[in-house]
Amino acid sequence: MSALRIGVAGLGTVGVGLLTLLDRNAEVVAARAGRPVVVTAVSARARGRDRGIPLDGLAWHDDPVALAADPTVDVVVELMGGSEGPARALVEASLAAGKPVVTANKALLAVHGRELAALAERHGVPLAFEAAVAGGIPAIKGLREGLAANRIERVAGILNGTCNYILTVMREEKRDFAEVLADAQKLGYAEADPAFDIDGIDAAHKLAILAALAFGRPVDFKAVHVEGIRAISALDIALAEQLGYRIKLLGIAARTPGGISTRVHPCMVPADAPIARVDGVYNAVVAEADFAGRLVMQGRGAGAGPTASAVAADLIDIARGRFTPVWGAALAPAATVPMAQRFGAYYLRLMVLDRPGVIADVTAILRDQSISLDSLLQRGRKPGEAVPVVLVTHDCEEAAMRAAIERIAALPAVLEQPTLIRIEQG
Amino acid sequence: MSALRIGVAGLGTVGVGLLTLLDRNAEVVAARAGRPVVVTAVSARARGRDRGIPLDGLAWHDDPVALAADPTVDVVVELMGGSEGPARALVEASLAAGKPVVTANKALLAVHGRELAALAERHGVPLAFEAAVAGGIPAIKGLREGLAANRIERVAGILNGTCNYILTVMREEKRDFAEVLADAQKLGYAEADPAFDIDGIDAAHKLAILAALAFGRPVDFKAVHVEGIRAISALDIALAEQLGYRIKLLGIAARTPGGISTRVHPCMVPADAPIARVDGVYNAVVAEADFAGRLVMQGRGAGAGPTASAVAADLIDIARGRFTPVWGAALAPAATVPMAQRFGAYYLRLMVLDRPGVIADVTAILRDQSISLDSLLQRGRKPGEAVPVVLVTHDCEEAAMRAAIERIAALPAVLEQPTLIRIEQG
Repeated sequence: MSALRIGVAGLGTVGVGLLTLLDRNAEVVAARAGRPVVVTAVSARARGRDRGIPLDGLAWHDDPVALAADPTVDVVVELMGGSEGPARALVEASLAAGKPVVTANKALLAVHGRELAALAERHGVPLAFEAAVAGGIPAIKGLREGLAANRIERVAGILNGTCNYILTVMREEKRDFAEVLADAQKLGYAEADPAFDIDGIDAAHKLAILAALAFGRPVDFKAVHVEGIRAISALDIALAEQLGYRIKLLGIAARTPGGISTRVHPCMVPADAPIARVDGVYNAVVAEADFAGRLVMQGRGAGAGPTASAVAADLIDIARGRFTPVWGAALAPAATVPMAQRFGAYYLRLMVLDRPGVIADVTAILRDQSISLDSLLQRGRKPGEAVPVVLVTHDCEEAAMRAAIERIAALPAVLEQPTLIRIEQG
Repeated sequence: MSALRIGVAGLGTVGVGLLTLLDRNAEVVAARAGRPVVVTAVSARARGRDRGIPLDGLAWHDDPVALAADPTVDVVVELMGGSEGPARALVEASLAAGKPVVTANKALLAVHGRELAALAERHGVPLAFEAAVAGGIPAIKGLREGLAANRIERVAGILNGTCNYILTVMREEKRDFAEVLADAQKLGYAEADPAFDIDGIDAAHKLAILAALAFGRPVDFKAVHVEGIRAISALDIALAEQLGYRIKLLGIAARTPGGISTRVHPCMVPADAPIARVDGVYNAVVAEADFAGRLVMQGRGAGAGPTASAVAADLIDIARGRFTPVWGAALAPAATVPMAQRFGAYYLRLMVLDRPGVIADVTAILRDQSISLDSLLQRGRKPGEAVPVVLVTHDCEEAAMRAAIERIAALPAVLEQPTLIRIEQG
């Protein structure tokens, strides 16, 4: 059978990884694809740069969008990144030209996935993006095909390797956020401008995609509640450990009585939950399905090899003619539940002046909001000085918790903005 | 689009589970399949039995093989089990009639998979079997499609829920094998005749299938080295825990310098390995892939819901026209390595008479076989009585270890057949 001819836009780490894979594993890929998969054209910024791989014989386009019109290209692979600009233009032009697209671009899919899916459908071409979520874990295939016969109740995941690495080092070495972030930047595990990762945006892009797949509805990034990990302290991590929890940045999409809830924020998960033990740069995705039960997948979330593996898996599906609609299927729409309606348990950590009556004031406020306590932990005694007080609540509604925190923060004996971490089952 | 019409052979737990799923999740299945998936015909042993689900309007065949010829059946689902007899006859007849087959039958695939795959290929029809391995975990899809672009180095798994349940209860309750097995039989977690599960045959069937997928070669059940869990004692489980390990029955297929090794036996795995924490009736599959790295999948390995979910996922693939060759692809053949060439570390537990010179005799035998010790643990002192002695070796070849054990077992002070458990990384 004739070869599947690929045009690759973007020759950074992942692009070079893909070319390396298609070269080194050419035989495996051809056998599993039923035909050779060969790169015929590329586009990148600096033509002259030495990338450590030969580019001879490949057509070079200075303008990536030209790949859409290149008659020697059957499938366009977009590895430039960014939700706007050339990445978006190339994907749109390729789909409009009836050319299948494989992309690793979560930002593009999270922000414009609705229109891009419609465009792909209109032209009857695949738009594949296994590499956009959780790198080397076949999470999209697992959800959209493996669990296709199930009603999915909940998907949760560790979706950002930078955050998971920082939280892991903070716990293992009992060090504070700013210090560990600086080290991670030196080691190349965090970007020079880390906001995109540590503020939860990257995880939210991925979560928006997983939610769309799980619940069969168009992607809705704006509906995702997002909090990052800047506020997590070494103290909270140590207290979590004492209470039998670990702190993880999770993306969670869940079906609740009021509709679908989508959110990214730090969570305390029981230390014996599988997801609690996924450390460092590993990612994990947990799905709860009505017939299959709980499925946990963990693996490498980023890097040249895992991402190239996911892109190449999409190319093999296309070479074999295996087609799945972008969001799996359109299922009955469900309302989006605002974060204020989140129902669950909370960890609340205060810094208070150690003097009589403070705990009574705090617990009275919680009682007024009908929030009941599971446990209360005062650490150390230093009369007249600041001490941490930890409260773990039973399940309650977030709106009540927020109202309580506002009043608690205003108490004269409460010295800092309280730290709130939601407790999840992992 | 017209409905996909299914004929189901076997209405036990899984058959009833499938009919329940296709009824209860009809809307989800139709949306993801792009067309309704409906059961039109069934076959089972006792026509009159109440199975708690309505069978009105379905054609009933006393002879399951008649489903292959029923013109109202587009796809045959075989859920009877057994490597011979009606299950085999039905699958052969269906494929020969050009009808796609979905089966949960690992024994049939492990023993006759080679000829059945050839038959399916000759007639150009799908033979799908996601449900045959690890129930609700999309392990086959994950390996064969998700990691399709990778050279797989190793696949390991907890593939039998009965064994994992028994080993888990033995550890948690510090009880012995026979007692826990008897309880498991009462609770329905083990069969009245448990040999198939506890002697490792069922796990070996599944491992043979995974090995074929991972290494792109026809299934070869006879090449699998198989040991079950009958010889595992509460004492060994306790000693393993002291040494920082857990005992699991693993199926392992690995590429080694000498070729492919396939085996099922009890293993000691580090207590912090993800697979060490997969307890009870859960299954897990771990794959090491050259580009994707390590992928771990865990979920429910058996039961009506998970198995029905896997069968229905195959039906949705067929409804969508998504086709994958039975073994993924034919890759370059590799030799099979016999168990005697296994290279790794060993746990060896002896019961010896506590008297001077015994340890010297044992260690001299190991030295003669060039086996070096990582640690030696003598538990308690009872001069003149039997005490357990544990030896953990560095990596060595199994043939040397077996030769050493033969000589050690013959020492007058060694009172029982030594217990040997291989140490694996999980």
